[in-house]
Amino acid sequence: MLKANDPSLHSWIQIAPDSDFPIQNLPFGIFQTPEKDPRVGVAIGNYVLDMCVLGQYNMFELIDIDPTVFHRPYLNDFIAHGRPVWRAIRNRVSELLRTNNEEISGNSELMQKCLVRMTDAEMLLPVKVGNYTDFYSSLEHATNVGQLFRDPDNPLLPNWRHMPVAYHGRASSIVVSGTPIYRPKGQTKAAEADLPAFGPSKQLDYELEVAFITGKETALGTSIAADEADEHIFGLVLLNDWSARDVQKWEYVPLGPFLSKSFATSISPWVVTLDALEPFRVKGPEQLPRPLSYLDFTGHRHYDINLEVQLQPASGNTTTLCHTNFKHLYWNMSQQLAHQTSNGVNLQVGDIYASGTISGSEPGSFGSLLELTRQGQNPVTLPDNTQRSFLQDYDTVIMRGFSEKEGIRIGFGEVRGQVLPAV
Amino acid sequence: MLKANDPSLHSWIQIAPDSDFPIQNLPFGIFQTPEKDPRVGVAIGNYVLDMCVLGQYNMFELIDIDPTVFHRPYLNDFIAHGRPVWRAIRNRVSELLRTNNEEISGNSELMQKCLVRMTDAEMLLPVKVGNYTDFYSSLEHATNVGQLFRDPDNPLLPNWRHMPVAYHGRASSIVVSGTPIYRPKGQTKAAEADLPAFGPSKQLDYELEVAFITGKETALGTSIAADEADEHIFGLVLLNDWSARDVQKWEYVPLGPFLSKSFATSISPWVVTLDALEPFRVKGPEQLPRPLSYLDFTGHRHYDINLEVQLQPASGNTTTLCHTNFKHLYWNMSQQLAHQTSNGVNLQVGDIYASGTISGSEPGSFGSLLELTRQGQNPVTLPDNTQRSFLQDYDTVIMRGFSEKEGIRIGFGEVRGQVLPAV
Repeated sequence: MLKANDPSLHSWIQIAPDSDFPIQNLPFGIFQTPEKDPRVGVAIGNYVLDMCVLGQYNMFELIDIDPTVFHRPYLNDFIAHGRPVWRAIRNRVSELLRTNNEEISGNSELMQKCLVRMTDAEMLLPVKVGNYTDFYSSLEHATNVGQLFRDPDNPLLPNWRHMPVAYHGRASSIVVSGTPIYRPKGQTKAAEADLPAFGPSKQLDYELEVAFITGKETALGTSIAADEADEHIFGLVLLNDWSARDVQKWEYVPLGPFLSKSFATSISPWVVTLDALEPFRVKGPEQLPRPLSYLDFTGHRHYDINLEVQLQPASGNTTTLCHTNFKHLYWNMSQQLAHQTSNGVNLQVGDIYASGTISGSEPGSFGSLLELTRQGQNPVTLPDNTQRSFLQDYDTVIMRGFSEKEGIRIGFGEVRGQVLPAV
Repeated sequence: MLKANDPSLHSWIQIAPDSDFPIQNLPFGIFQTPEKDPRVGVAIGNYVLDMCVLGQYNMFELIDIDPTVFHRPYLNDFIAHGRPVWRAIRNRVSELLRTNNEEISGNSELMQKCLVRMTDAEMLLPVKVGNYTDFYSSLEHATNVGQLFRDPDNPLLPNWRHMPVAYHGRASSIVVSGTPIYRPKGQTKAAEADLPAFGPSKQLDYELEVAFITGKETALGTSIAADEADEHIFGLVLLNDWSARDVQKWEYVPLGPFLSKSFATSISPWVVTLDALEPFRVKGPEQLPRPLSYLDFTGHRHYDINLEVQLQPASGNTTTLCHTNFKHLYWNMSQQLAHQTSNGVNLQVGDIYASGTISGSEPGSFGSLLELTRQGQNPVTLPDNTQRSFLQDYDTVIMRGFSEKEGIRIGFGEVRGQVLPAV
């Protein structure tokens, strides 16, 4: 076990037992305050640890890194250093925060400078996104969508069980949690209409996803074996793949979803490292027929991460619409990265690879309204007695995720977005 | 007419009458030499004009730009200044190069420093690509592919005449002309096989396209009207959208082409400005049924650009496989950009928007081997008496483009790539 994951570790910082950010987590993000320009921070309890200040106080002297990489508006320059450096930095931060370590706790000037209350910090987009791929790796989601969009009796296309199907998404419109989402306009065609129409989407939806961020550049012409994938994955975030279903249905043949998705994609600000998630590896579902050998992997490469979606209407109380788990995915991240690079395409630092909507087998575990309401046929009733087939203006969607074991909770925080009227 | 486009202009530099780069063109690119690190250049005849040196000699004093933006490995910082500055710089370069202007020609030290023979310059990727969209805007190409991949009697899907259908491509693997292309591996399934197989593609193809590069950032939630699009388009390049047809056919449902395209996309190094192409605007084809009003435009928004594809086998002579024209496209660039941003997605500087394969109505004008050989059923015979259904290892594909009128030729140079065996 990595020392930094030891459940017996405690910090000199007071941390609530239900905090997403105990000393065993230490996710990385980018924050700013009215006094501080954008820089790298680490979440610990209710605080953001200012990595830039720790660098100025020579706290990373023994690690082969120029600490000015923490004084950047994106994590890219830090994560370009590769896994040995990420791990060394996380281990060192763990050491500095442990009970009895006095390097920070014994230096009141440093302590005051390097700890920022989360309520005082504004979180920014953690990476400058190079490329964005969205997979489609939940068997239940692909089946549900296939039934609704295509053939109820034959929902899964022939390639699905042979490869982690995916498409390229839009990188420019990936935004951090809290960014308002304008209802997109688009072209739609009602089933009974002769001609399409243009206007605000009437079927705005969310999609619950988890995404990984790559942290190592590769050359054109090289491929990554599934068993090597971990060396390239810096960490994970929650992702809401906002979707306009009416636009999607009309536009997506034959080249796939385009404007129905590209108007906005929200991610959570804290990147939880693969190292922090190490204790939560689990076996995935059996894959039959057996995939081709370039998708082979050894060991357990699924992760047990509890996920939930909440809806908060402008006026009313929050309702939980979905409880599911990242472990339900059919294809794992190692297979996704092996498939992505099987044609020799190069990876860039800060690429985002999303899972696709994560659904379980029951309606309460469906990761989109499309599935939950059967394309609007069975609206859900909220506590304020209003109904939702799809999202209304001023609705806020909140997604949360956490792993938990032996009393240790490795949380993702949340990804939140409020729908604003079309402009 | 823009003064810089005046057909009567001549330069003190000797330029062959069939050169792609007369004084009326002045495309921008990024070059390096053994002595010079990457920087901005302008093509003139057989020379590259070093914009960095001209900046050092205060040749752009009257223009509101910091000339150190020419000392960059990408054009992005220059083109982020917007159209008034691009135009002012091109006008100024035109002035400096005119017969009788002695600011350069009368200063032998400067002249020696700022003119680099093209044969001494290595051309690099002109922009750091933000986002890459590939449209599908040729009626003939969409019809040909629909016949081969789907239904011979009903090739065009219902949405095609209502919107410029498109998908997102991979930005990381866009490479400059001359970069070798490794034959991609991928998953394919033969029609008669029960199960898919993995290995080098047996149906590697090119696609002849023209792409535009955006040069102005926009905010999320804003849209660009078709008539405003020109303000956002810095210029055009040739683009070869290399495609593995066997991979594409098996993977593309339901989310569109992915690994069959993402292994490599080649572009020509010189970005020909929209200003240089101004004299070549032409009326496009009639669009019926009339598109929705968000796709309305005024004036002529197609461009008359002659295009050709040549194939050069390792051992043999070059054959021309295609002659076609950019004006054949059904949807124009202004409509493409209006559609792209109709959902409020933000543009970034250096985004690439490709036309989709440009085919005319006859086999000699088809922009891909897929169409020309009817998916390999009618191979073409080369001068060395070998046949091609698809590309073989060591084949080189060369695409060229130029506009011509009143004795003035505005050329794109070429985009070239040689296929290397799978690694």
